[in-house]
Amino acid sequence: MTAAVSAAQLTSTHRPTLDQALAAIRARAYWSPHPEHPRAYGPDGPRPGTLAAAEGQAAFDALRGTRLDWGQPGTDGWTGGEISPYGIEVGVEYPHPDLDVLLPAMRAGMPAWRQAGPATRALVCLEILARISARSHLFAHAVMHTTGQAFPMAFQAGGPHAQDRGLEAVAYAFEEQTRTPQEAEWSKPQGRRDPLRLRKTFTPVPRGISLLVGCSTFPTWNGYPGLFASLATGNPVLVKPHPRAVLPLALTVRTARETLGDAGFDPNLVALAAELPDEGLARRLAVRPEIRIVDYTGSTAFGEWLETHARQAQVFTEKAGVNTIVVDSTDDYRGMLDNLAFSLSLYSGQMCTTPQNLLIPRDGIRTDAGHRSYDEVVADLAAAVDAVLGDDTRAAALLGAVAGPRIRERIEAAPGLGEVVLASRAVTHPAFPGATIRTPVIVKADGARKFWEGPEPDAPYLSECFGPVSFAVAVDSAADAVDLLRRTVRAKGALTVGAYTTSSEVERLVEEACLEECAPLSLNLTGGVYVNQTAAFSDFHGTGGNPAANAALCDGAFVASRFRVVEVRRPA
Amino acid sequence: MTAAVSAAQLTSTHRPTLDQALAAIRARAYWSPHPEHPRAYGPDGPRPGTLAAAEGQAAFDALRGTRLDWGQPGTDGWTGGEISPYGIEVGVEYPHPDLDVLLPAMRAGMPAWRQAGPATRALVCLEILARISARSHLFAHAVMHTTGQAFPMAFQAGGPHAQDRGLEAVAYAFEEQTRTPQEAEWSKPQGRRDPLRLRKTFTPVPRGISLLVGCSTFPTWNGYPGLFASLATGNPVLVKPHPRAVLPLALTVRTARETLGDAGFDPNLVALAAELPDEGLARRLAVRPEIRIVDYTGSTAFGEWLETHARQAQVFTEKAGVNTIVVDSTDDYRGMLDNLAFSLSLYSGQMCTTPQNLLIPRDGIRTDAGHRSYDEVVADLAAAVDAVLGDDTRAAALLGAVAGPRIRERIEAAPGLGEVVLASRAVTHPAFPGATIRTPVIVKADGARKFWEGPEPDAPYLSECFGPVSFAVAVDSAADAVDLLRRTVRAKGALTVGAYTTSSEVERLVEEACLEECAPLSLNLTGGVYVNQTAAFSDFHGTGGNPAANAALCDGAFVASRFRVVEVRRPA
Repeated sequence: MTAAVSAAQLTSTHRPTLDQALAAIRARAYWSPHPEHPRAYGPDGPRPGTLAAAEGQAAFDALRGTRLDWGQPGTDGWTGGEISPYGIEVGVEYPHPDLDVLLPAMRAGMPAWRQAGPATRALVCLEILARISARSHLFAHAVMHTTGQAFPMAFQAGGPHAQDRGLEAVAYAFEEQTRTPQEAEWSKPQGRRDPLRLRKTFTPVPRGISLLVGCSTFPTWNGYPGLFASLATGNPVLVKPHPRAVLPLALTVRTARETLGDAGFDPNLVALAAELPDEGLARRLAVRPEIRIVDYTGSTAFGEWLETHARQAQVFTEKAGVNTIVVDSTDDYRGMLDNLAFSLSLYSGQMCTTPQNLLIPRDGIRTDAGHRSYDEVVADLAAAVDAVLGDDTRAAALLGAVAGPRIRERIEAAPGLGEVVLASRAVTHPAFPGATIRTPVIVKADGARKFWEGPEPDAPYLSECFGPVSFAVAVDSAADAVDLLRRTVRAKGALTVGAYTTSSEVERLVEEACLEECAPLSLNLTGGVYVNQTAAFSDFHGTGGNPAANAALCDGAFVASRFRVVEVRRPA
Repeated sequence: MTAAVSAAQLTSTHRPTLDQALAAIRARAYWSPHPEHPRAYGPDGPRPGTLAAAEGQAAFDALRGTRLDWGQPGTDGWTGGEISPYGIEVGVEYPHPDLDVLLPAMRAGMPAWRQAGPATRALVCLEILARISARSHLFAHAVMHTTGQAFPMAFQAGGPHAQDRGLEAVAYAFEEQTRTPQEAEWSKPQGRRDPLRLRKTFTPVPRGISLLVGCSTFPTWNGYPGLFASLATGNPVLVKPHPRAVLPLALTVRTARETLGDAGFDPNLVALAAELPDEGLARRLAVRPEIRIVDYTGSTAFGEWLETHARQAQVFTEKAGVNTIVVDSTDDYRGMLDNLAFSLSLYSGQMCTTPQNLLIPRDGIRTDAGHRSYDEVVADLAAAVDAVLGDDTRAAALLGAVAGPRIRERIEAAPGLGEVVLASRAVTHPAFPGATIRTPVIVKADGARKFWEGPEPDAPYLSECFGPVSFAVAVDSAADAVDLLRRTVRAKGALTVGAYTTSSEVERLVEEACLEECAPLSLNLTGGVYVNQTAAFSDFHGTGGNPAANAALCDGAFVASRFRVVEVRRPA
């Protein structure tokens, strides 16, 4: 095959970025090569060769109602028909796979991809990411109209932030594969006799086909780490998107296939497996012997099913958790309220990192605005949410749309869980009147130990209530809050924990609890950083050490078992 | 607690060794800080402060028939009574655990051990290894009289080589935990506004109690990687030895506990779980919720049971495989025969790395001694084994004793598997007349495709026949040999593959097969390096990518998931 993109071009274009990424994951300071502002993109702007806003919109409009046909082997029909949470039809059709044809076709390119070595694989992955980045304005619409995210978030989280997470995975994969040299000379002294001499080679080899089971809320952000970690370590990747959020990953697959072909590799190293309605394709795929790695984000039930049944594969899961904020005291009451109000509102609480339980002492808290009773704190927080979401246009840009009927049902059922201190209301989108948009609901709850201790506690806040429903839990003391936090993380998992305190003793207790229960902690966030956001190259997403996830994005453990090293030794 | 060994002492004594080990795992050239010659040890020799040969013997003799009581919490009785494969009684008694007392006691020291950080943990581990190294002559007798290894091997493999593997694991664990800095400042530009600033800490935290399920043949060599990888990453380690090989690991536990106490840590971070006869303690322990990591070496059946049932834990297994040697051609016929004869004889084939199937073309092979027919190759190999083992004293020092009745039964059953071209004979040990010592048996077998192709092949060489039984398999071509090699590795796993060839094409085919089936390859070994031996810091033991093992000793994947990183972030 002749390569339209040469190895030399890839190196000169992307090697500096790879080196910066390698430095970033070691330093964990702020870094990103992907501007997060939509205006940074466009052919005449600071990123020439990229789609401008209007071009992205036009490209998305042109895609609607079409069939994405890239000639994928083993296509036995077409499926699709996504409806945007904003009420418009996306209507793109995707290839449905005949696995007995597709899986062998995906394996055919493995030897050449393995022989390319870690550096070339990393650079090809960076070229894929660069082409995705250039189309960020298209991806933003694809993410918005499948997940329901508002455009600003769909652009940032679905575009540059997802690309950051993909690049981070490539950097980890490259580093892990190059910790062992390709060759070594070994010479063992034998006293007066000649030394024993061997020449050794060490080759990273892939495990097999990697399956990405995508999620409905952050298909690219949660999908790219596994996709790029597996591809960069030599494995073909089969992408099985959530049926409500196919388009962003289908466009990703298309870009990856184009790039692989241009670089002289088999495009079938990356393929799409879109499913028919109610087909349960992931369940069938995950236990195929050809599938040796699975990356999954979604419900705890299916995550645990995968961990139990896909025994032939390395399984990386991000499941559900119950995220807690301990509210003990603060020297910036206003900042705390505004920060929490934003965290609860962002994407209508449809983030795996959104706080659910706010643990507030029954006797109230000390603040720079004086002592505030539990009722006052709850009322002030409700008012802060109202203030953030007071204007419908601004509210819609923060809340996004509710994706799927189950979240709407949960909002409607919330009054049955306790006294509502902030009621949810419907918001009308200025451009999409068909969108279902709801503000968050906050429910009061009793955090006395009797409700959550013991073998069968019945407090409603001990279960995950995914969506914009949170609990203001009245606890008897800060120590009780920490115990409830521990219990919640241990039993239900957590992707985030937050705490507000001016007490070094409470801070110590919370920090110790998070270290022992293995949950990441954000302390006293009152400015423009929110507990639900993590930044690639610096923050780990999840820990892999509590029930919410068995892996962290992204660390050595996330990449190290995706490949193996085969040693060959010969007399020197 | 006051520490008898200070952090400063640990640093000055062991930091240079740790740094050398870190350099060694990156360079993978020859390196070891543990001399493998028995005469290197002794108070007046090059290793002052270490036991000399006579002292090791005396220490072992003094231990026989005693009770090892280090006051382990939750001791509800005593068990033991090992009988040496050399026919003498070892008769040491060990504490039997009440798990409901012992496991909580092991967890008590975790916070302080976590807070000590990766460097201190690594240095304490190096001090444990140094104290073990000083007692290598004692460990040699303990290994010899539990495993049946001959003294030279018991000394080297059970002493310095095992210590090397432990140190290697400590180095990997230290490197993995320190890839992320302890602290980072994060500052994200916000255009004309002030940047967002956070201060972040990253703490490696342990998973929980780590269980080591020891094996009967190489209790220290196979046990130290998991033990030290887990301890160095902050986890307490509970050691459950094989009931026939308790003493080497009990002495290890005793040394670790002494060292931890002297360094100011809780000795209960390492404990022993010796089992009652037929208790099945590993099965009960492995599924306890407190156990979060399991390291295991042994049968495929129990390894797969652990992988299936110990779902709450990270499970690292080394199981059985069927190791193959492809004999295609050689330019050193004598060297090949001698090398293979040694490999088959060493420790009576009781190594997981011993070759089992020698694939030899039916039409014979090209050699520097001219063309040799299949029958000639087989006869010459049998003669080479006879020559190596001709003298009983020398034979005993190479073969060691047969451990357990099942291997003897297998030797006796070998004639039922095919025509015997080399019969096994009994050897009398000069010092231990009660020892059961047997020379290897080689059986002819037909390697025509019909015997190993298809869904239910019935060739006897497709099953593992652990012990000194090997098959001279007549194949129709080198290409067939490679196909049979692939099939064997894929279905049964392999810890080693060897090949002899002067053909670059056959070499390429074998190498490609090993890369694709994920098995380590040794090519044309004719000198003093044997396919069954791997050297720490340079060779990986196993790949973790075929059914013989799900992990390699030792790489990043072996340590990366033994701990997790907890991030705490605060406004800067």
